[in-house]
Amino acid sequence: MNYRLIVRLLCSVLRIVAAFMIPAAVISLTHHEMPSFYAFLITIGIMLLLSLISYLYKPKKKTFYAREGFVLAALTWVMVSTLGCLPFVISKTIPKFIDALFETVSGFTTTGASIVTDYGHLTMGMLYWRSFTHWLGGMGVLVFLLTLETITNGSGDSMHIMRAESPGPQVSKLVPHTIASARILYAIYIAFTLLMLVLLLLGGIPVFDAVNIAFATAGTGGFAINAAGIGGYSPYIQWVVAVFMMLFGVNFGIYYLIIQRSYRKAFRNSELLLYLTTILFATGLVFVTIFRQYGFEGSLRNSFFQVSSIMTSTGFATADFNLWPQFARTLLVALMLIGACAGSTGGGFKVSRVIILFKALKHEVRRALHPNSVGAVHIDGDTVSRDTISNTYAYLVAYCLIIVFSILLLGIDGMDYETNVTAVISCLNNIGPGLGTVGPMGGYSGYSVLSKIVLIVNMLLGRLEIFPLLILFVPGVWKKARN
Amino acid sequence: MNYRLIVRLLCSVLRIVAAFMIPAAVISLTHHEMPSFYAFLITIGIMLLLSLISYLYKPKKKTFYAREGFVLAALTWVMVSTLGCLPFVISKTIPKFIDALFETVSGFTTTGASIVTDYGHLTMGMLYWRSFTHWLGGMGVLVFLLTLETITNGSGDSMHIMRAESPGPQVSKLVPHTIASARILYAIYIAFTLLMLVLLLLGGIPVFDAVNIAFATAGTGGFAINAAGIGGYSPYIQWVVAVFMMLFGVNFGIYYLIIQRSYRKAFRNSELLLYLTTILFATGLVFVTIFRQYGFEGSLRNSFFQVSSIMTSTGFATADFNLWPQFARTLLVALMLIGACAGSTGGGFKVSRVIILFKALKHEVRRALHPNSVGAVHIDGDTVSRDTISNTYAYLVAYCLIIVFSILLLGIDGMDYETNVTAVISCLNNIGPGLGTVGPMGGYSGYSVLSKIVLIVNMLLGRLEIFPLLILFVPGVWKKARN
Repeated sequence: MNYRLIVRLLCSVLRIVAAFMIPAAVISLTHHEMPSFYAFLITIGIMLLLSLISYLYKPKKKTFYAREGFVLAALTWVMVSTLGCLPFVISKTIPKFIDALFETVSGFTTTGASIVTDYGHLTMGMLYWRSFTHWLGGMGVLVFLLTLETITNGSGDSMHIMRAESPGPQVSKLVPHTIASARILYAIYIAFTLLMLVLLLLGGIPVFDAVNIAFATAGTGGFAINAAGIGGYSPYIQWVVAVFMMLFGVNFGIYYLIIQRSYRKAFRNSELLLYLTTILFATGLVFVTIFRQYGFEGSLRNSFFQVSSIMTSTGFATADFNLWPQFARTLLVALMLIGACAGSTGGGFKVSRVIILFKALKHEVRRALHPNSVGAVHIDGDTVSRDTISNTYAYLVAYCLIIVFSILLLGIDGMDYETNVTAVISCLNNIGPGLGTVGPMGGYSGYSVLSKIVLIVNMLLGRLEIFPLLILFVPGVWKKARN
Repeated sequence: MNYRLIVRLLCSVLRIVAAFMIPAAVISLTHHEMPSFYAFLITIGIMLLLSLISYLYKPKKKTFYAREGFVLAALTWVMVSTLGCLPFVISKTIPKFIDALFETVSGFTTTGASIVTDYGHLTMGMLYWRSFTHWLGGMGVLVFLLTLETITNGSGDSMHIMRAESPGPQVSKLVPHTIASARILYAIYIAFTLLMLVLLLLGGIPVFDAVNIAFATAGTGGFAINAAGIGGYSPYIQWVVAVFMMLFGVNFGIYYLIIQRSYRKAFRNSELLLYLTTILFATGLVFVTIFRQYGFEGSLRNSFFQVSSIMTSTGFATADFNLWPQFARTLLVALMLIGACAGSTGGGFKVSRVIILFKALKHEVRRALHPNSVGAVHIDGDTVSRDTISNTYAYLVAYCLIIVFSILLLGIDGMDYETNVTAVISCLNNIGPGLGTVGPMGGYSGYSVLSKIVLIVNMLLGRLEIFPLLILFVPGVWKKARN
């Protein structure tokens, strides 16, 4: 294990997060929120101080293997969450550490699950910081680090960093060079965020609201800045948010293809097609179920908004879908389990994994009939390697185990079954709301410390796609590098 | 596809089931339950008449491939369930066909989920037939057929029959010859059933009760013969049932090893060890949770009974565990998902599959760290083939898909989430009770026809372990045999 390089990279991450906290401090200052301002300043100070460690440990080698990538990703996210929650604790906006940590992990992992019960307690600076964690966490802080500098000695090595933080079953580089890929991703991300911001401002809402909503939508996070959520804005704003949630749930590689005018390849992508079909189909089903309640435009808007919000793992709500008919509620939970596209800012199991598993299952059934047949699994004309398939299978196993164990641990708390099951599914898939007590108009404040820890771990497992965190517990990972 | 041989075998199955219905008819007659008696007679007549078809189609070839095995198993179970429910319909004991089918499928698949709300409606003959379907379904009607005659031209071919109906991820023959294996299995099965019967009679309960309880326990079914269930009998009877449920959930291969005095191999079997450890551990946890409610002996008995009942997929209840603390309820649902050992009469996902998946996951995590490492998954010193692993993986995929889709379809009904989720888990794993409305003191009568069909399909999928039924929908299966 190349400890020295990992420490150096962690220090770079600290500087980036410290820099990104400055706007929050400025907002607090301009709104005369002095406790918040000082809290941000102190946290920035702590982070900069910690980042000085990098001057003590100069990396001797720049080699970077898969396990270094995983360990770096895991440590980065734990560190950023722990330090990122300090402003809440220091300013006493969220006085309990576990609650502040829950909120911050929920922010960075783009979950949007909240323990906030009274939005009056949150200052403008804190609201901004909360929304910003969504934006940074959405595309990834390590991917951002990659855009800044050539930190390792070659694209093959920095690939391990990208791979560990980017979602999806297969590694997808847009261009051969990892650094360039990271830059393109962030460029598209920033462009879409700005476009959305403009469209929101055209709807006549305050700049502060627009910025926060744009951050939370772009990262597919879902933190609201007031108790009414997106339901408190005009139908125009709701439509804009609904469409952009859907757009941010698409694999960013598709946008790159479109920029390169490879329309044919972009629009024949089976993940994109299944993603869009599912949204369309689910919207139709929910529409029929809630038609009586809202009339035509209202039903169309609410059903599309909710399906888009849940499928992309954003978790915004315009209506209390917890009160909808049982079929619509169940359908939304099923969508939670699928999630968005690989290579998007969205969370969840990912549409591409569903496709791989479905094709592998078909292949296996065929093989049960004709035991001696050979053949491989193909997606979009490409052969899916046996390694990718068994990796995806293993992902499903880990995913199921985590769900069952987490529900079991939450069972100690005495909340009802529906709440516990959907809380776990929602947190592991980085959605936000569930059903029952954790429904869109409810929250996570009622859970015990143990349950909150379980859900925090779930959110991190979901965002990092399980393996980087699992690997920390494999004996042998912490051994020094060979040779 | 060798249609002619399949038809001949189906006719043999019909004769077996007709023969096994005679005791039920006799019981009805001796208790002067004439409508029941005639209903059994008519059904026996129909089955014998149908079985005459075998004289029209003489099989030309005796070759039997994997796909023939799967198709035979699927058709057998659908046919036996459809005809086996006729006595209920004809005698108007259960007048609605869908309810009678539900009850019979629940019987043969050893689920024990019931739509019966008033046990006063069930005659002695019907109660006996209901319990007997558990016993026959537990070890399997095709396995029974194998014990009777040499139906195919070699052990390799009859293996495909055994494989399609026997539970577990790997084919386990006790001895090289399939017919002999089937006979040993049934010999052990009958011996244990008789032993249990004797122990029950020593507890001083009526012979009729003892026979029914023994059948339902041996098949890990769980139909009760009155509303009180096993809770209505003495603690001695409850302990006997609890211990025997556990014994019938063990791989019968272990008993054969013990008979052969291979104690070392038997007691070091990792599936057996995990199975027993899980029961012990879960009993301890439930015991602690319910201690206040029942005192020492009562808590020990109720916790062991319930854990043994759920883990083995029997589904008997001595207490309304739906009213237990949330942790105990959740733990029982988690046990439902594991199920009993492969090669037992118990249902569920199977302990051995859990072991395979867990080891495969570990292997995959190791490989993520060291991409070039080789190595295989080992269980009890044997290498698990890649085929078995990918088959088990595919099983998990199908299992998850079925659960999600079934819950979705049940959502149309408007029952609550907890009831729907546990109803599906319970039926797919052939347990019986769930939580909420389908709890141990509740039942399935409240569901709509659509939901009942979904749950019937789930029970069949669970008992046949998914693939034989899936395969019916693969194009090409129904083509005539090559050459």
